[in-house]
Amino acid sequence: MARSRQAAQPAAREPTTNQQKGTRMSSDAPAVQDFYPDDVAHCYGCGRLNESGLRLRTRWEGEETVSRLTPAPYHTAIPGAVYGGLVASLLDCHGTGSAAAAVLRAEGREIGDGESPRFVTAALHVDFLKPTPLGPELEVRGRITEIKGRKVVVEETLSADGVVTARGHVVAVRIADVPAATP
Amino acid sequence: MARSRQAAQPAAREPTTNQQKGTRMSSDAPAVQDFYPDDVAHCYGCGRLNESGLRLRTRWEGEETVSRLTPAPYHTAIPGAVYGGLVASLLDCHGTGSAAAAVLRAEGREIGDGESPRFVTAALHVDFLKPTPLGPELEVRGRITEIKGRKVVVEETLSADGVVTARGHVVAVRIADVPAATP
Repeated sequence: MARSRQAAQPAAREPTTNQQKGTRMSSDAPAVQDFYPDDVAHCYGCGRLNESGLRLRTRWEGEETVSRLTPAPYHTAIPGAVYGGLVASLLDCHGTGSAAAAVLRAEGREIGDGESPRFVTAALHVDFLKPTPLGPELEVRGRITEIKGRKVVVEETLSADGVVTARGHVVAVRIADVPAATP
Repeated sequence: MARSRQAAQPAAREPTTNQQKGTRMSSDAPAVQDFYPDDVAHCYGCGRLNESGLRLRTRWEGEETVSRLTPAPYHTAIPGAVYGGLVASLLDCHGTGSAAAAVLRAEGREIGDGESPRFVTAALHVDFLKPTPLGPELEVRGRITEIKGRKVVVEETLSADGVVTARGHVVAVRIADVPAATP
């Protein structure tokens, strides 16, 4: 397993390169996914090394975690709406990213202070409250409601133009082969 | 809204054309999505008219609905596993497709006997039981547990090589602008 922090940094400095065609993100600040170990950084939803993927990136804003992404025109469901699978994907990867950020914070670390711990999803629940409009940037916000052993629980909202269109609940579990801290 | 059955049939005869690069499906039998009205047939997950999408297709096998898809190599999570967003997407679109199939059957109709009713997802729950291996064809199977008014509930499994790796629960709601029957 490659654990050098140096290997992760180039992606952090160039967050919008190689992203899935047609999608856009809005910030260059370091994200928790920028510091996943290289060998667990290929997730289609949030891996910085997956050149075909969405490359979702998650940061703290106060007590909440935030990810933002503008879907591509082909991410449609019924006309004018984002397809549910993308909504679920964003809530899923935002959940694992938020869990990683939560563990860093619980250990007194900032994002980028060593590698990020890596979580996978054990359970995902999505309530689709109304159609998510296709066009504007989507914002996923998370609140950590539990950290217990390897498990982190995240409550989420997904919104477009300030209107919450979906709610998510993620139970994330830390995978065993990523060290607790690699300062 | 275009409601001619003729418009839907070419896709049913050529199910593997224009599919998302790198994915494969295993059957040419008519699927419920082949008969969605044209203007609600662009879903990234299951719309036959979305040339960038997954084009999931759902059929009956006895009392169960079945969809199959082989992910592309880039649909990875951690190495060797399918990313959770794709698992969620397949369960989501299989749920709405199963709901449509269930209403057709409840009305005494076969898939292709008129247009398919169109559902959207109100709630999706996914339990990720174990990593879903990336490589083999995935099979999603559904059982209808409730049909009440516009709502249909579907319980699902997703498996690879005969091993169930995820369970899904979908509450689907019929959208209002698709007629109950268009023989």
